[in-house]
Amino acid sequence: MVNDKIILGHGSGGRLTQELVRDVFLKHLGEAGPSSLDDGAVLDAQKERLVYTTDSYVVSPLEFPGGDIGTLCVAGTVNDLAVMGAKPLWLSLGVILEAGLPLETLERIVKSIGRTAKAAGVKMVCGDTKVVEHGKGDGIFINTSGVGILTTLLSPQTIQPGDKILISGMIGDHGMTLLTLRKGFEVEADLKSDCASLNSLIGNVTAEVSVKWMRDPTRGGVATALNELASGKGWGIRLEELALPFSEPVRGLEELLGLDPLYSANEGKALFVVPAAEVQQALEVLRKEPLGEKAAIIGEVTAKHAGKVVLNTTMNTLRTLGILTSDPLPRIC
Amino acid sequence: MVNDKIILGHGSGGRLTQELVRDVFLKHLGEAGPSSLDDGAVLDAQKERLVYTTDSYVVSPLEFPGGDIGTLCVAGTVNDLAVMGAKPLWLSLGVILEAGLPLETLERIVKSIGRTAKAAGVKMVCGDTKVVEHGKGDGIFINTSGVGILTTLLSPQTIQPGDKILISGMIGDHGMTLLTLRKGFEVEADLKSDCASLNSLIGNVTAEVSVKWMRDPTRGGVATALNELASGKGWGIRLEELALPFSEPVRGLEELLGLDPLYSANEGKALFVVPAAEVQQALEVLRKEPLGEKAAIIGEVTAKHAGKVVLNTTMNTLRTLGILTSDPLPRIC
Repeated sequence: MVNDKIILGHGSGGRLTQELVRDVFLKHLGEAGPSSLDDGAVLDAQKERLVYTTDSYVVSPLEFPGGDIGTLCVAGTVNDLAVMGAKPLWLSLGVILEAGLPLETLERIVKSIGRTAKAAGVKMVCGDTKVVEHGKGDGIFINTSGVGILTTLLSPQTIQPGDKILISGMIGDHGMTLLTLRKGFEVEADLKSDCASLNSLIGNVTAEVSVKWMRDPTRGGVATALNELASGKGWGIRLEELALPFSEPVRGLEELLGLDPLYSANEGKALFVVPAAEVQQALEVLRKEPLGEKAAIIGEVTAKHAGKVVLNTTMNTLRTLGILTSDPLPRIC
Repeated sequence: MVNDKIILGHGSGGRLTQELVRDVFLKHLGEAGPSSLDDGAVLDAQKERLVYTTDSYVVSPLEFPGGDIGTLCVAGTVNDLAVMGAKPLWLSLGVILEAGLPLETLERIVKSIGRTAKAAGVKMVCGDTKVVEHGKGDGIFINTSGVGILTTLLSPQTIQPGDKILISGMIGDHGMTLLTLRKGFEVEADLKSDCASLNSLIGNVTAEVSVKWMRDPTRGGVATALNELASGKGWGIRLEELALPFSEPVRGLEELLGLDPLYSANEGKALFVVPAAEVQQALEVLRKEPLGEKAAIIGEVTAKHAGKVVLNTTMNTLRTLGILTSDPLPRIC
């Protein structure tokens, strides 16, 4: 590459675009990338049912402790497919670059994409690059859609009082990391984003346990994800504050600043609803893997509080956890 | 909706996001939209081979004579699938909104998406909405990926001298329309973008003719698309200037400003390579439909000029048409 910054010509569809795709995208995606520069990819789905999802990523800053927009755009879409009961296979990669973006930043991000895709066992099979003028974007925005094969039929319609709520690990790390960075607080050494692909961990659980529902609690956090589940139902959800797994730095931020990690984004966590009879087995399967070693049973489905999510606090009072109504921290993902 | 402008909270993943999706996206997409707010969609592909593509759209201005970014983001992705020999079925919709975007602009664009998707017979099956601060985006950027079923096996490896090059209609209208708008020239009354979904027209051709290769000549135009085809091959392509179909306003801009419509973007045109023996049939099939009534045979594959595209000019001289090296007009799509 002759240039060390993105220029508008990189979005022309001509020679500069080809060079950028070849020297940055194909190069750094390696085996996780497409085999050609064609506009699309042919997928051999045999006779399976497919799951299809899309997400745009506008996280700011682009790089943060624990990951970057590249890690996030792969893990986020992989996790969306996995919590729908699918084995993620193919991802698309649509990037919108702002003119002036240093090429070395782009290269670091594409390397993250390649590394994360390879680790998750997915291929980035098609892509597209656009460039906007300096001041009309913000470094890089990425859309990754994804296609997977449906392997697990969930059964949210069978959820009933007594079912247990599990989470695969510590709550709120991604959101709290971004918040400390953005507000200019000193980031504690051991606070970092939990950004990770969960398809393997989730596959282990669904292979052994009758999971009724799963969700990755990203924007809006655990409280919003569970509210979406309970909304309009004839049952409620009660979380136990004492059971919620928080890292020390997140607990510290909660105490110092009054922030509620239940509304803070996670990018490497899954929530599960499982029958009470299988909850111990689910916990064991989760805790066998590093990504699930802090898994915990955090609450249960209740006959009371229909349509609502309540928190049984450490002071043994009940607090209703509403849905997030605005955005305490924009551009978290 | 309480607000008449996009605010950052619309990207929170909480209640405002839900309202925006329900009151703008689900409402205006209608039957062309998803049946639920779930993160992804289940596709029933039976035992077919699938084609998968992605494109981001950053066109400026958002609305222009002949279409808007909504028309474009559906037609563009539909056309990418169609020229790969696929029947387009499912599209994703990832939007990045800039805070301050008037809601009525967004509604007009989503209506265009719904109308264009319905006309093309495709469904927007999954979506995602993000919002960035005012000044960090430019109104609206859209990514649409798409999945289709492979119905036609093209055979670019059998292309040989004597094969004919066809285009489905007038050249350069989209690019020239955007250029006149952006440079502040008075737009001629009859100059407008050719933005259109070609899947039906292309399906008619591939049903009756042995098409060897197809492409929608968008960014970089006809010259760049044909250069990509010829590059590295043992044959060349010769276009006949007298045969090129241009609208009067495009020809006028070419003569007044020296702009070359062969490098100007098209958003509702397809190029075909077909055997000489079938070219008349292809032309007849194309001309039966309004979208193909100006179709023309514009050149042929030649034993000479290997790897190159040349233009036999009106003065009977040969001019080599190189690949576009930079971007004469950024953000055309």
